[in-house]
Amino acid sequence: MAKEIYLDNHSNAKIDERVLAEMMPYLKENYGNAQSMHALGERAKEALEKARQQAGNMIGAGVNEICFTSCASEANNLAVKGTAEAFKHKGRHIVVSGIEHFSVLYAAKRLGMMGFEITYLPVDKHGLVSPDDVKKAIKAETILVSVQHANPEIGAIQPIKEIAKAVHERNVLFHTDATCTAGIVPVNVEDLGADLLTFSSTQFYGPKGAAALYIKKGIRLAPLIDGGIQEGGKRAGTENIPAIAGFGKACEIAKTEMETNARRTILLRDRLLDQLPKKIEYLYLTGHPSQRLPNNVSFMVEFVEGEGMFLLLDQKGIYVTSGSACASKALKMSHVLTAINADPAIGQGSILMTLSKYNTGDEIDYILAEFPPIVKKLREMSPLYSYFLKTGRRKAAGPGTDYDHEHEHEHEEVL
Amino acid sequence: MAKEIYLDNHSNAKIDERVLAEMMPYLKENYGNAQSMHALGERAKEALEKARQQAGNMIGAGVNEICFTSCASEANNLAVKGTAEAFKHKGRHIVVSGIEHFSVLYAAKRLGMMGFEITYLPVDKHGLVSPDDVKKAIKAETILVSVQHANPEIGAIQPIKEIAKAVHERNVLFHTDATCTAGIVPVNVEDLGADLLTFSSTQFYGPKGAAALYIKKGIRLAPLIDGGIQEGGKRAGTENIPAIAGFGKACEIAKTEMETNARRTILLRDRLLDQLPKKIEYLYLTGHPSQRLPNNVSFMVEFVEGEGMFLLLDQKGIYVTSGSACASKALKMSHVLTAINADPAIGQGSILMTLSKYNTGDEIDYILAEFPPIVKKLREMSPLYSYFLKTGRRKAAGPGTDYDHEHEHEHEEVL
Repeated sequence: MAKEIYLDNHSNAKIDERVLAEMMPYLKENYGNAQSMHALGERAKEALEKARQQAGNMIGAGVNEICFTSCASEANNLAVKGTAEAFKHKGRHIVVSGIEHFSVLYAAKRLGMMGFEITYLPVDKHGLVSPDDVKKAIKAETILVSVQHANPEIGAIQPIKEIAKAVHERNVLFHTDATCTAGIVPVNVEDLGADLLTFSSTQFYGPKGAAALYIKKGIRLAPLIDGGIQEGGKRAGTENIPAIAGFGKACEIAKTEMETNARRTILLRDRLLDQLPKKIEYLYLTGHPSQRLPNNVSFMVEFVEGEGMFLLLDQKGIYVTSGSACASKALKMSHVLTAINADPAIGQGSILMTLSKYNTGDEIDYILAEFPPIVKKLREMSPLYSYFLKTGRRKAAGPGTDYDHEHEHEHEEVL
Repeated sequence: MAKEIYLDNHSNAKIDERVLAEMMPYLKENYGNAQSMHALGERAKEALEKARQQAGNMIGAGVNEICFTSCASEANNLAVKGTAEAFKHKGRHIVVSGIEHFSVLYAAKRLGMMGFEITYLPVDKHGLVSPDDVKKAIKAETILVSVQHANPEIGAIQPIKEIAKAVHERNVLFHTDATCTAGIVPVNVEDLGADLLTFSSTQFYGPKGAAALYIKKGIRLAPLIDGGIQEGGKRAGTENIPAIAGFGKACEIAKTEMETNARRTILLRDRLLDQLPKKIEYLYLTGHPSQRLPNNVSFMVEFVEGEGMFLLLDQKGIYVTSGSACASKALKMSHVLTAINADPAIGQGSILMTLSKYNTGDEIDYILAEFPPIVKKLREMSPLYSYFLKTGRRKAAGPGTDYDHEHEHEHEEVL
């Protein structure tokens, strides 16, 4: 097989072999349903409760505070919609940050269509929410504030403790989507002050098919999936025991190894964050310089499109994400880059690299050698770049540079 | 390991080795996210679309009509709540049978709490819904009728074609929960006339963690899980590729092998249905004599409790379900047995055995040898049975026997 350098661990990381080993018996001989009372059911139930303990241990929660779901999106929907349904008699106002994952944003939007009022919090140029803005947004009718622990696209880590404090001063529930942080950096629900916390193991070497919502003792949400008595009535449906067992094992491993892994990926991350802007002109790092996920390298490259970089990197076996890969041909960029006020023209050239414990220094060398020529090649084909070389002027400019407003109207003609 | 005879395939059947083989690459080297555009993402996407084709093929649906979910309960919730949310402007009345799975019943109940009107259809003593009752239940405000294809507890197969016809005459959407039938008996969405159909592979040798809702082309439901663009916007969340690949493979295998499997389990089933009432006095079969799942053996045993039979069978390594195992000590029986008007005292002694292709004739011999002495032993400890032996009178009676009304009031004193 050709070289494959996987830098898309935000989308999914490779399962740890120890995690897979934990799952296998439940894919083979221990196939019982955890609700069955015979020996095969008991074995499934034991795996379920062991995983619940492991998951709770990692985030400092009690076993009865862990509600397993099928994925983080489901957990986020349960947090937002389940709170709305359960507490709508108290009020119909919900506050979310503008850079939440779509599963929070669109869950909130759905509620908006059902008569709830939604306030979207702004972020600064580094992607941080201000606790003061949270305070200002809360009203008498507010029942929930949801702000992610860290952003998947630009890696900015929010001041969650301060935000939670501001929320609790007003006796409102606080949810945080910790999908990017749990298992990667220490996450403790009490330290953070979370009433509800979403986490998933797909980024820390667990399987697809399992995630969890921490629901603080005493909080009763309406289930998203009604039916059987699974998960204490909070989530019906046959428990996906192999995935849940894997999730638990991944939590157990992360608890002892995340620090080592983080130190390791930070070294690799910082080489990229340091070297890329030196090797590639007009490359702008996004996110916060220090309040940043240990595995996140995100930036925008001027005069080129994310899709082009993505494709040429792909040919070299370097797998990344382009924030604009799914966008239309229009000058449309992700909601996150829009929220940090990135220039739309430069936002087109956004790239996200997320590292894992499997990445090596050699891989970073390879990227640092292969990536600059790719940008050079793409710029040679870029009318925006040739215009810049000829005139010294930009069609658009990045954060911290001067925007050439005189020529803004030429944009559409050129592209 | 001691003898294990697994007759709880309704709860979950053992994964077929070919299914597991199909899943393994996605648990190991092909760990990409199907939404990623690099080679690892493409491999996941291919597995997803292959499974969609396999699932569609089995039930005669187009690929774009298959919406993957994490379990049948989620698919049922999506069908019921998704229809309600999308069509509430047309009306707020929903019709379900009284013997639906809890994931339909409680989804409907939830809607009832949100201002919808729910009509529960009765069933006859065999558990069948009458198409005439369906006709009568439909009103101008009706937006959905949901009647299961077969009942998991008593195995009765509903006259779905006639019910669907009655529903469509009134231009109402029809959902059927085919969790017990798809992959076990031929299920074709056009033949049945289903607009929405839930199916899962856990009973036909697929994995936990994947199920699907067939959504007929042109029908737009509101998603249960909002967020990303997965499943054409109908179900957000990272696709559980290993489970979905396994689900697809299970569908492919079932399409060619279900007839052989059904013939085989019918032979075993019929030996039990024939011999058990001969070997055990006062044993009453439940469900329909001919309109019955090929793998379902369900009955009630008078003068004993399901829990006692369950425990002694368990000691012999025979794993079954007792419909009353989860019930309290009160004379409470399942909603299904209540709906077929079973006597509460006899309903306490309900047992469900569901067969799979792995069961053998020798296992049936073993059950037929071991079960009657278990019942005998339990009856020797039963005050109801000793009362019956002494007086020739019952405290309560089964279907088809005369109820001793004079002594009804003694019930509570005795128990």
